[in-house]
Amino acid sequence: MSVNELSQRHALILDALHRLLQRGAMRNLGRMVNKMHPAEVAKVVRHLDDLSEKRIVIALIQDVEDRADALSELDQDSMVAVFTEMSRSEQLDILHALSSDDAADLVGMLPQDIAAEVVAALHKADSEVVELLGYPEETAGGIMTPAFLSIPLTTTVGEAIELLQGAAEAEMVFYIYVVDEAGALKGVLSLRELITMAPDVAVEGVMTTPVIRVSVGSDQEEVARLTARYNLLAVPVVDPDDRLVGIITVDDVIDVIREEATEDMLKMSGTGVDAEYTLSVGSLKAARMRIPWLLVNVLGGVVSAWVMMRFTATLQTVLALTAFIPVSMALGGSLGIQSATIVVRGLATGRIELGDVRRVFLREVRVGAMVGVVCGGLVGVFALLWQSPWLGLVVGSSLFAASCVAVTIGTLAPILFESMKIDPAIASGPLVTMLNDIAGLVIYLGLATAMLAALASA
Amino acid sequence: MSVNELSQRHALILDALHRLLQRGAMRNLGRMVNKMHPAEVAKVVRHLDDLSEKRIVIALIQDVEDRADALSELDQDSMVAVFTEMSRSEQLDILHALSSDDAADLVGMLPQDIAAEVVAALHKADSEVVELLGYPEETAGGIMTPAFLSIPLTTTVGEAIELLQGAAEAEMVFYIYVVDEAGALKGVLSLRELITMAPDVAVEGVMTTPVIRVSVGSDQEEVARLTARYNLLAVPVVDPDDRLVGIITVDDVIDVIREEATEDMLKMSGTGVDAEYTLSVGSLKAARMRIPWLLVNVLGGVVSAWVMMRFTATLQTVLALTAFIPVSMALGGSLGIQSATIVVRGLATGRIELGDVRRVFLREVRVGAMVGVVCGGLVGVFALLWQSPWLGLVVGSSLFAASCVAVTIGTLAPILFESMKIDPAIASGPLVTMLNDIAGLVIYLGLATAMLAALASA
Repeated sequence: MSVNELSQRHALILDALHRLLQRGAMRNLGRMVNKMHPAEVAKVVRHLDDLSEKRIVIALIQDVEDRADALSELDQDSMVAVFTEMSRSEQLDILHALSSDDAADLVGMLPQDIAAEVVAALHKADSEVVELLGYPEETAGGIMTPAFLSIPLTTTVGEAIELLQGAAEAEMVFYIYVVDEAGALKGVLSLRELITMAPDVAVEGVMTTPVIRVSVGSDQEEVARLTARYNLLAVPVVDPDDRLVGIITVDDVIDVIREEATEDMLKMSGTGVDAEYTLSVGSLKAARMRIPWLLVNVLGGVVSAWVMMRFTATLQTVLALTAFIPVSMALGGSLGIQSATIVVRGLATGRIELGDVRRVFLREVRVGAMVGVVCGGLVGVFALLWQSPWLGLVVGSSLFAASCVAVTIGTLAPILFESMKIDPAIASGPLVTMLNDIAGLVIYLGLATAMLAALASA
Repeated sequence: MSVNELSQRHALILDALHRLLQRGAMRNLGRMVNKMHPAEVAKVVRHLDDLSEKRIVIALIQDVEDRADALSELDQDSMVAVFTEMSRSEQLDILHALSSDDAADLVGMLPQDIAAEVVAALHKADSEVVELLGYPEETAGGIMTPAFLSIPLTTTVGEAIELLQGAAEAEMVFYIYVVDEAGALKGVLSLRELITMAPDVAVEGVMTTPVIRVSVGSDQEEVARLTARYNLLAVPVVDPDDRLVGIITVDDVIDVIREEATEDMLKMSGTGVDAEYTLSVGSLKAARMRIPWLLVNVLGGVVSAWVMMRFTATLQTVLALTAFIPVSMALGGSLGIQSATIVVRGLATGRIELGDVRRVFLREVRVGAMVGVVCGGLVGVFALLWQSPWLGLVVGSSLFAASCVAVTIGTLAPILFESMKIDPAIASGPLVTMLNDIAGLVIYLGLATAMLAALASA
């Protein structure tokens, strides 16, 4: 199947599923589901409206590993709902079939009381998952899997290959790690390197050193940055004593990169911080997540209203002034968000670091000045021709000043947040817009008032 | 080195580089550079201000493969500048050392005249790169590498392993593909599977089928989606006759995912579409890229000004009306961008498809109504207490109406663009804001005028 056919194929499958579910044709349904890739089943199940339908389709997958895989690919809400309705023994089967990092993630999503029961049951069976639950979700420890292969320095290449052949557990094996007696990470060998080497040499002599690594407490964003920079397939994770405790595979890194980008975009638009948001969240929960950030706009609006009433005298003298308030707000807001987006994304991808602040800031100020000249000039000339030379001058020069202020706030707000160790995406969007709205208004009305006063006294 | 030390380490290195460059201590500089990982050299070189300094440091890397790798990790402008200043034979060495997809990318970035000369020189030496240049940059063909391993159906497992041991060229080998006599893709085997199998069986009997694949013309975003969904390390690329022509490895997919996310964020803020934008673009070029989108705001502002002058009579009667124009614009703009971001990102990650339109739209409308009740209520009560019950009613009800309109425009604009095969990110940001600004203004002033008329006739 090629990519272009996937969507159509998937619509056809969904259609067939619906029909079979309505007819209760479980035998045919089971045959169909078991022919599909678990990820594909998950993709279709996401689009079923009914929770019980989702449960039925997942339950029909015969192979427990495939069933676990399909479940782990569902959206968070469905996953928890389907999992919670399973029997305790079925739940434990699923958790065993999942790789331990995915299992720990799933348990972390459950409501506290259910999670506690499941963990108690697990304790007897699977200490790896329980151990992983101890690490914060968005750290290297939280996304790593302990299913790696490590060998002592004295192992020969031949022995290492034999070990690999027997290792059914280790997921996606491409590297084998070499550790000393204390378990400290010393070197690495790729599967491909191993099969090209003489079988009787010790790995100590042929392994690659030093090994790029992360510590258990590293932020998952840092892990993603490192993987992308060094084109790695897996990153080893070490504890504070440099002992190898897990690996993070590239498929999990891809999920992190996508999630972090989604979260940054949602944060900047003030939508709350849940990457799962897009479809599965109900409208009440969605409104609750979004309203706090919109209240920043409301607060800014109330301050703006207060500012405008302070300038009542000016506005009464020249009512046409009000007509250009929207353009000043729109230009300042957009320009500020442009600068903020560049800085937030640059910080997230590592293209901009705190040391680059001066360079980025100077570039943005130059851009702001140029934008101010072009856009201020255009709107100024329009106001001049349409209303009066006086208004044209006020509008043009205040747009210029507002542009310079907008890039300044847009650049410095995220940098300030980053240096205070606050996520720059989270508050840059709504905050930058609000500050720029108010600043633009004060500049515009202040300038108009000053010029009116100058005209009156002349 | 752990992640946390990287930044500090990198500042120290940059510092040392600067000092050695100033002193002209080339021997020490060379020793230092050759001890570093090429990706790390690139990272530091990006932060040198001077082009000739960048050139010197890259030239000091002795191993041509490492030199090529470091060069390919630079930002686009520096890469082109450094490459252009090399001798023709040095250029060809670099292109040979790069994997052919990276080489094709580099050639694609060069100014046309230089690219033509380089391609002419290449033609004699390296037809693979020249062939890859024929595919559009953002398709599967454009990012694939032809350095894959394929074997006929009748090969034995043992022969396949021998082939792997001898294959120095194929980059990051984890899969070996099985093709029929016509070159059509029939199956796949992982390196790990191969070493656990009996050496004398034919691959036809043990290979995995069917193989997930993309066609040369597939969009790179589709490739990324597929890789993430099925946790693949490499995706095979087939031509229209289903013949295997290349593979896309996961490291290139990661670059695609990061680039596409950056581009979507920049597009939504109206910053132009260059993922390389963040640091290396000069201020003049930056202003040229950003001004067109800001002109959308300017146009919206001019229309707003015209709308407001149409309502001069209303504004003259109750000047306090002007005070609440900013809050209506800010709320409508932010709410619309929230909806647009959710839809744009959902479409990009595959969480929302065109078939989900109705569901997403109904959810957003409900959210808009709830936001309208809460924010409209708050600001309405404020206006009522501060000014008059009449103004409170106008402000509250127009904010409610504006919220419902904002989510509608924010949801439907990107969906409309997607269904017209226009990138939904590109115009959703500035366009949605402009439409919402104007709609909010018309609703607010229209409602106020109608109520004033009703009061006058009562």
